Amino acid sequence: MIILKIGGSILTNKDSTESEVDYASLKRIASEIKDALDESDKELIIVHGAGSFGHPPAKKYKIGEVFAEEEFPQKRIGFCEVQNAVKKLNMLICESFIDEGLPVIAIPASSFMTATNKRITEGNLDYFKKYLNKGFIPVVYGDVVLDTQLEICVISGDQIIQYLAVNLNADKVILGTDVDGVYNKNPKTHDDAIFFDRFSSLKDLDTLEGTTNVDVTGGMVGKIKELLYLADLGIESKIINAEIENNIFKALNDEEVKGTVISRGN
Amino acid sequence: MIILKIGGSILTNKDSTESEVDYASLKRIASEIKDALDESDKELIIVHGAGSFGHPPAKKYKIGEVFAEEEFPQKRIGFCEVQNAVKKLNMLICESFIDEGLPVIAIPASSFMTATNKRITEGNLDYFKKYLNKGFIPVVYGDVVLDTQLEICVISGDQIIQYLAVNLNADKVILGTDVDGVYNKNPKTHDDAIFFDRFSSLKDLDTLEGTTNVDVTGGMVGKIKELLYLADLGIESKIINAEIENNIFKALNDEEVKGTVISRGN
Repeated sequence: MIILKIGGSILTNKDSTESEVDYASLKRIASEIKDALDESDKELIIVHGAGSFGHPPAKKYKIGEVFAEEEFPQKRIGFCEVQNAVKKLNMLICESFIDEGLPVIAIPASSFMTATNKRITEGNLDYFKKYLNKGFIPVVYGDVVLDTQLEICVISGDQIIQYLAVNLNADKVILGTDVDGVYNKNPKTHDDAIFFDRFSSLKDLDTLEGTTNVDVTGGMVGKIKELLYLADLGIESKIINAEIENNIFKALNDEEVKGTVISRGN
Repeated sequence: MIILKIGGSILTNKDSTESEVDYASLKRIASEIKDALDESDKELIIVHGAGSFGHPPAKKYKIGEVFAEEEFPQKRIGFCEVQNAVKKLNMLICESFIDEGLPVIAIPASSFMTATNKRITEGNLDYFKKYLNKGFIPVVYGDVVLDTQLEICVISGDQIIQYLAVNLNADKVILGTDVDGVYNKNPKTHDDAIFFDRFSSLKDLDTLEGTTNVDVTGGMVGKIKELLYLADLGIESKIINAEIENNIFKALNDEEVKGTVISRGN
């Protein structure tokens, strides 16, 4: 089974103050996935980020930070706003994917996952198995969930990948981002950025300035931490550039694509 | 705990070929619920129908009918289309409700319920309890679910009410519809329609022409069957007209409202 993450930065315009979907990217990616599945049958789960839909309300209400009891009603409304905003993004993504013939079925984290101190500690995956078993493509995304310590928190698509990959024993994890993989510095602002084609420890890097956007869920460093944990369990993942045409198609079909492999091996 | 159903016919224009939300109704109903909760704290679950969003794709793909194995890929896409359409309606409803200050949190049936021959046979309600416990208002709606006999089916908001009321031991069930309650004939087309203020058996009626709209999930007769089953278990319900201003507010606050009580008692 393959888990494909599509970054919020590919699907939305994170810099925009309005929540905007990038329909051209969405349609291209949907058609690459469809072509890859037509080539050969694959079990697939899609995870997407919250992008410009989820981050603004999550920041506004400081979801995930400790708060005083009397602030709870306000935090609770914030939680609902975030849930609804990411649901809207998911609905728009699913609409495009269904139009391309992909049988995508959403399973929101907020309806079955619980965290403890911002880490997923509960989440029954039976419905993922049921839908996969019938040839559906389950879709899950960065969302708000109840937290046994903090009452509420945000969980990133990256943390969800890790949870799914471990508990469903994924064969392959692909992360489509807006960069070619992991650099020691931001390649968009530094010409001397060094590219890593394989990555096995956070210590490999002097500086991880990493991502091109500010990301409440931790950006590239957060991503790599999740993936190193997976690597420890023997599940290899690869970060690729989903903005380059056919990269997702190739990665799904085991063809060579530039990217950073995260593994603990050699 | 109160379960409030808001019929799809109140929230959308079922007769329209386009999926249209009735924003004026939505805003008014949201504000009546908010006022009722401000009056006194209540545990509340909201169930809404699929209205003009869910019914057209469900009919188009004949979801719930027996089909040949080779038709499954087509049915599967239909299933996804329905899920996404009702998710869109839910998102628009939640948006209006959150704007009024209601902490609504969606828990879609498709992500945790399974049916057998169109009846819900599985659905862990732990997340309803968790959210209620934190003062949220869980929202669930007519949706598609996997079916152990038919592969896939549609479950109505009315069936969901019944399942929730039984398994969460609801104190009160209120159904907001577009009529005053149960008549022996359609009151919008028959001047001699007789109104029932209490209803305890399907045999009470000679003819149940009932609803004003064609409804794939069974209309008023289907509704009453679900509610009579509840009545057998000692849970009384009341069908009221949600189009009349303040009816929902009054019903939530135990004030007198015209309507049909469904119970097995006297």
